[in-house]
Amino acid sequence: MTILEQAKAGKAAPAVLAAAKAEGLDAPGLVAEIAAGRAVVPANVARGAGRSVMAVGAPSRIKVNANIGTSKDISDLKEELEKLDAAERAGADAVMDLSTGGDLRHVRSKILEAAKITVGSVPIYEAAVNAANAGKPVVEMSANEILEAVRTHAADGVDFLTVHCGLTREAIRKLAERPRICGVVSRGGTFLAAWMQRHKQENPLYERFDEVIDIAREYEATLSLGDALRPGALADSMDAAQLAELMTLGELGRRARERGVQVMIEGPGHVPLDQIAAQVQLEKVLCDGAPFYVLGPLVTDVAPGYDHIVAAIGGAVAAWHGADFICYVTPTEHLALPAPQDVYEGVIAARIAAHAGEVARYGARARQWDDRFSKLRRNRDWEGEISQGIDPPRARQIRASRNPPQEDACSMCGEYCVFKIMETVPGANQEG
Amino acid sequence: MTILEQAKAGKAAPAVLAAAKAEGLDAPGLVAEIAAGRAVVPANVARGAGRSVMAVGAPSRIKVNANIGTSKDISDLKEELEKLDAAERAGADAVMDLSTGGDLRHVRSKILEAAKITVGSVPIYEAAVNAANAGKPVVEMSANEILEAVRTHAADGVDFLTVHCGLTREAIRKLAERPRICGVVSRGGTFLAAWMQRHKQENPLYERFDEVIDIAREYEATLSLGDALRPGALADSMDAAQLAELMTLGELGRRARERGVQVMIEGPGHVPLDQIAAQVQLEKVLCDGAPFYVLGPLVTDVAPGYDHIVAAIGGAVAAWHGADFICYVTPTEHLALPAPQDVYEGVIAARIAAHAGEVARYGARARQWDDRFSKLRRNRDWEGEISQGIDPPRARQIRASRNPPQEDACSMCGEYCVFKIMETVPGANQEG
Repeated sequence: MTILEQAKAGKAAPAVLAAAKAEGLDAPGLVAEIAAGRAVVPANVARGAGRSVMAVGAPSRIKVNANIGTSKDISDLKEELEKLDAAERAGADAVMDLSTGGDLRHVRSKILEAAKITVGSVPIYEAAVNAANAGKPVVEMSANEILEAVRTHAADGVDFLTVHCGLTREAIRKLAERPRICGVVSRGGTFLAAWMQRHKQENPLYERFDEVIDIAREYEATLSLGDALRPGALADSMDAAQLAELMTLGELGRRARERGVQVMIEGPGHVPLDQIAAQVQLEKVLCDGAPFYVLGPLVTDVAPGYDHIVAAIGGAVAAWHGADFICYVTPTEHLALPAPQDVYEGVIAARIAAHAGEVARYGARARQWDDRFSKLRRNRDWEGEISQGIDPPRARQIRASRNPPQEDACSMCGEYCVFKIMETVPGANQEG
Repeated sequence: MTILEQAKAGKAAPAVLAAAKAEGLDAPGLVAEIAAGRAVVPANVARGAGRSVMAVGAPSRIKVNANIGTSKDISDLKEELEKLDAAERAGADAVMDLSTGGDLRHVRSKILEAAKITVGSVPIYEAAVNAANAGKPVVEMSANEILEAVRTHAADGVDFLTVHCGLTREAIRKLAERPRICGVVSRGGTFLAAWMQRHKQENPLYERFDEVIDIAREYEATLSLGDALRPGALADSMDAAQLAELMTLGELGRRARERGVQVMIEGPGHVPLDQIAAQVQLEKVLCDGAPFYVLGPLVTDVAPGYDHIVAAIGGAVAAWHGADFICYVTPTEHLALPAPQDVYEGVIAARIAAHAGEVARYGARARQWDDRFSKLRRNRDWEGEISQGIDPPRARQIRASRNPPQEDACSMCGEYCVFKIMETVPGANQEG
């Protein structure tokens, strides 16, 4: 029985127990959410032991993913393992190997071997890259090769697979009806859309979705149903093409869950701040509350070099309204392949977004970290404030870089520290 | 006649014309908003020529302020002028000189002389620092010295003055009734609260508010009514003390405007994401739509080293809901006095927040930059994309750091660039 089938029978699979324990969650409660399709625990059975697992979806903590992987132009396994390490040090819950350069299967096996956390991938990249490596245009991959790539990734032990199964010819027709500024910007989605246009055929991941389910079942791979038509510009957000695909993803998600396969739904993309709540709500309603895995959202198009900040704004608001899993964006997005330091910064920004969203979504129970932390701040417990913040090494480095003469204040305020001054006056500055 | 009095008479003062022209705004429309108290143009008559002026409040663009200034422990005029330059290069609309170290009047005069943009300050710092420099506790400044500092700053040409006139003994009593984690965290507010507790007297800036108005009138200094009781921890947000002060600020704002003095209202602070809309709405209702000048808001307490990102999340949401002026927060907030590079990054983060908020608030008309930019991106016009983004030098440096072999793609996707692939397939990828 799969994790989902066990959950439907009221049983907690070992991975579910481990995921619940990792967060101090009530296991039966998590089992009920998994049974209802509102939470997942990605845990491929082909992957070796010694790694952690995570739950995605309420009541668990909002999770953060870091995309790593080689590119055609920069393919350096050692650097990818450094990025994996940077992601883990920064507190990522998962990484996706999006490699498109070098020996993809070798890179993947090394990442799966080294990773202590959940790993995802996008199998269609491999089918496309194989075509390109054979000297053909990427659209010359075959439908069978696309399905085969899904099987290979599942068999290799990848915990969750992004598959753009909801991209249909009908959805592409809607794109043509109301042209976008940036068209299709999902890379896997573009490979598929180009393939469909070239061959005048339906998306094989849609037509042969039962085979995709079979593979996912066999290896207990969670399906992350990708949004090929996610908007790549603010102006393109929430159009009919995007919504048509989301509706299809809802239907496919039901089919997968009926056959015991766990499902997440992927979401945008470039979205104006005021549309994020609606985007999340649409996913929750159309996809029966399935965990929502968002990329960004990016709330402006104009800030290359700072898209980790742009995505933190969108991610926080998405998390507040119900997104469950945030894919980070790094400072190099739209400009270059990230280096390890970019990965690190991207994860921290996404964790800030996730936590700020949780505080808004769950109130005081999610605010315990903040409350504890603010007491350290009030007490000028600098060591506590540094070590219990989101990034102790960075906080320590900043404070040390402008070393204050007073041990008990900082170089901003010194003796004019508000907490120091109020201590000298009997008043109302503190609680208990 | 003051700028506000002229506006009430339907006339545009020269500074108003200049502010409207700077943004391509309709001058009569701006005049009407100034007359109603919903917009201001801070422009001290004692300040020399050759600087720009800005409007704050709809229909003008959302503005960004950078706090600079020496501290007791790090007092280096040269570095402060470098920070001013960094703020201006990054696109700040205003700076505040918050100096507390060295010869404050000298530092201020040099900043006012060098600044091409609007300048603000917090006069009470000078009264407190003068007391400290005379070997006394800061609470031993006199009420007259506090008022004298306001006059000095106005006479020196400061365009807007933060004065914590709404802090009353009654509001402090409310603090004691429901103790906070972090009490009072506004530095000027703490000086005053400590003074009031020490001397058992009412706030002189409240009791003698008519004198404050007289000074502001004389020099056409805009009053930025400070929130001494802004929350310094998420748990402290929106309590009775904060709201009592805000109600008082609403009353004082009306009194100032009746006498021809322009007014902005300052806002928090540390605020959970889900309370930001209410915070903005309360200000708009209680203060008759006066321009709202927010610090942050910071949507989590736990991220020292990244508070520019934390503030960008809160600032974007505040701007969306109606905030008009965003005070930046730098990466060194809560840890150290910022250096020039921190100032630069803080301004960019705040500009991202302001723009994302504008897009959400005003829709397509605020999205023109994004739409134009996304077309450059689609067309792989790299030079255009770099030069028209929010920070051209940084985008250029990132792209160059991982120099792509293909001139027309980046090192992330290379030949798998979605735009390149879609160009090879007749399809629906583009508009026009």
